[in-house]
Amino acid sequence: MVRAGVVVTGTEVLTGRVADRNGPWLADQLRQAGVDIADIVVVGDRPDDLRDALAFLSGVQLIITSGGLGPTADDLTAVTVGDFQGRPSALDPDLEQRIADIVERLMAGRGWKTDPEATAAAVRKQAFVPTGASVLAPVGTAPGLVVPPAEGRAGPPVLVLPGPPRELQGMWAAALADPIVGEALAGRAELRQRTMRIWGVPESELSAALRRHDDDLDGLEVTTCMTDAELEIVTRYAPDAEQAYDRLGDALVGEFGAALYSRDGRTVDRVVADALLERSLTIATTESCTAGLLAGRLTDLPGSSAYVLGGLVTYSNLAKHELAGVPMELIDRVGAVSEEVAEAMAAGARWRLGTDVGVGITGVAGPDGGTAEKPVGLVHLCVVAPGRTLSRRINVPGSRRDVRLRTVAVAMHMIRSVLTE
Amino acid sequence: MVRAGVVVTGTEVLTGRVADRNGPWLADQLRQAGVDIADIVVVGDRPDDLRDALAFLSGVQLIITSGGLGPTADDLTAVTVGDFQGRPSALDPDLEQRIADIVERLMAGRGWKTDPEATAAAVRKQAFVPTGASVLAPVGTAPGLVVPPAEGRAGPPVLVLPGPPRELQGMWAAALADPIVGEALAGRAELRQRTMRIWGVPESELSAALRRHDDDLDGLEVTTCMTDAELEIVTRYAPDAEQAYDRLGDALVGEFGAALYSRDGRTVDRVVADALLERSLTIATTESCTAGLLAGRLTDLPGSSAYVLGGLVTYSNLAKHELAGVPMELIDRVGAVSEEVAEAMAAGARWRLGTDVGVGITGVAGPDGGTAEKPVGLVHLCVVAPGRTLSRRINVPGSRRDVRLRTVAVAMHMIRSVLTE
Repeated sequence: MVRAGVVVTGTEVLTGRVADRNGPWLADQLRQAGVDIADIVVVGDRPDDLRDALAFLSGVQLIITSGGLGPTADDLTAVTVGDFQGRPSALDPDLEQRIADIVERLMAGRGWKTDPEATAAAVRKQAFVPTGASVLAPVGTAPGLVVPPAEGRAGPPVLVLPGPPRELQGMWAAALADPIVGEALAGRAELRQRTMRIWGVPESELSAALRRHDDDLDGLEVTTCMTDAELEIVTRYAPDAEQAYDRLGDALVGEFGAALYSRDGRTVDRVVADALLERSLTIATTESCTAGLLAGRLTDLPGSSAYVLGGLVTYSNLAKHELAGVPMELIDRVGAVSEEVAEAMAAGARWRLGTDVGVGITGVAGPDGGTAEKPVGLVHLCVVAPGRTLSRRINVPGSRRDVRLRTVAVAMHMIRSVLTE
Repeated sequence: MVRAGVVVTGTEVLTGRVADRNGPWLADQLRQAGVDIADIVVVGDRPDDLRDALAFLSGVQLIITSGGLGPTADDLTAVTVGDFQGRPSALDPDLEQRIADIVERLMAGRGWKTDPEATAAAVRKQAFVPTGASVLAPVGTAPGLVVPPAEGRAGPPVLVLPGPPRELQGMWAAALADPIVGEALAGRAELRQRTMRIWGVPESELSAALRRHDDDLDGLEVTTCMTDAELEIVTRYAPDAEQAYDRLGDALVGEFGAALYSRDGRTVDRVVADALLERSLTIATTESCTAGLLAGRLTDLPGSSAYVLGGLVTYSNLAKHELAGVPMELIDRVGAVSEEVAEAMAAGARWRLGTDVGVGITGVAGPDGGTAEKPVGLVHLCVVAPGRTLSRRINVPGSRRDVRLRTVAVAMHMIRSVLTE
């Protein structure tokens, strides 16, 4: 098995001020390319710690670093990797000119005033690279680097990539095409990777089902995880295990029925979008506690303007009445957080936007505003479609954020259920 | 300096299917408690890799693991840590009973049907813990553990915490209060940590400014990072460097003026909320390409119902007209993505919701729908407040997601600017 290790650098990542999106992205790309990931190590902007991490990972075939290529003094990755590989750094004048051209265009585009001296120092810093390293063309301002060990030294090459995800991802194809990287990863066997998704079933039930079908798992590497009350089953296998994978799929459909809502890896977002497109239906929302997050999610996918016409965010009771046409008398009688008001909000979305499907959401997101009868976390949802109405009441534990995000997930699955089951 | 290392376990984290929220959270908590973080190591559900990571970190004073305490067979952290510390695992019958009670309540609350045998196996698995470890009471179903090295062994104790962030965070106070953890972290010196925020200035300018004021930085540990086109400056210092920190703040205000919009660490979200509350103003939105994400963000903070009355998501042109009152003639003449329509949308939000402040956003989120004249990433924003109108046109590079999120950030800063500058 060919293995790689990833080092994510940056005190801002280590201390949680910026979430690392690179480690997981790289891991996913590598796995799909048939390379196993050993570890992702996050270190701060301290050369000693980076050096220790490189040494820790030196048993793998390729080390990839992300971050620490920026213009500031605490961006130390290039020089530290060079020293680790026995390649002292020097200024690359061609690279300096290329970066200077990029920076000039960038600053002009943003209309930022800059101090020429500070800019020149920043450019020079980014063009100071280990001798003998291959340079990958910058996507932003920082170049990538492939740094093999110096003549006579052992250990894997280090692929040095920039921290901003857009830049790192934009450089990935060039990195894989680099001959030294290619040689390091020689012998990798591309694997198929397939995903199934289950909604509303505890992980322990899935574990028990997988144990019951242990015989079907030969040649399959199955991993499961639960996110957003949803179970994701990711399976990797060599092409000759395709039939085993099909048998596993059949077995799980037998176990979980319609709860296994995606056998082809489509997310609930994609399933909902496809169902709306296939049946030429339009959709609109009226949201209170989620306040636009469901509309925002329904429009995440490109092309959503074909079926999302709009939505209403009715945070106040008056807005529920005036925008969505919920009778004030109803709100006074049963309260804004109630099954009746959720249904009137769903109907109001259909009516106001002239759509086929309407969704209404009203709840107590907290942390304040809860009562004994209507505690924080209580949410009423309703989906109205031609000939069908589906209402649900949920109690979500956790923070305001948890309540809002879980509610949006439940709403997506209710829409899916109404449209496809 | 007292140092800790964090091991995040889980193939789903390593492969990017679940984002790690625990490593950064723990790092932040530890730093505020005066403990330095050496590394965060992410490993898959493989005992060998976990063991290697524990060995790599064994020079620190405390190792913390997160994840791998669940009910499934690939949750191996407790047993692996026990073996590493020379403490074989055994069933803890009291713990088994406590977990069984919790699981029973949980399943009843969710209304899930469960197989009693699968449930019992899951409970037993979670009560199988290293001998001599201290048990931290479960927040979800999994207990935390403090596992010191066995008699006669060297190395730091390992604090074993569950993977779900809510459970891990809920257990943190109890973990810090554990005597073995307390002893490991003895000698830590609590530091002050303060944050300043700057909007619309490149990182190289900040670096240059910090170099100019190098004399003011004595005793201060300054880290900077750029997220969402915003610069965050986090400084840690011992209490006796308070005056040096004040001088740094004065110097940066002198350099950047109003661009340094937060000297007290408040986020733009908080600054906007405070400005609305102080002046008793209300706000509403009309969103096209962001489709509810701005309304969703304005309502992230508790108490936002005091000033957010609602919003309109006008994805279709007809919705822009019928909901926000944008004249069809205007849309036909200048196009839906235009300064004029953004302003009419902002005015429409104020009018329709009866608020003091209105925000209008219309743009091309992509990846399709762009033209030479109105390319993907072009967005017009407008904020209308009593006596003040602010319009901006931006061109955002990157993906649909990048365009939408950056637009929401720009809108937040435009609202802040209108209300506070």
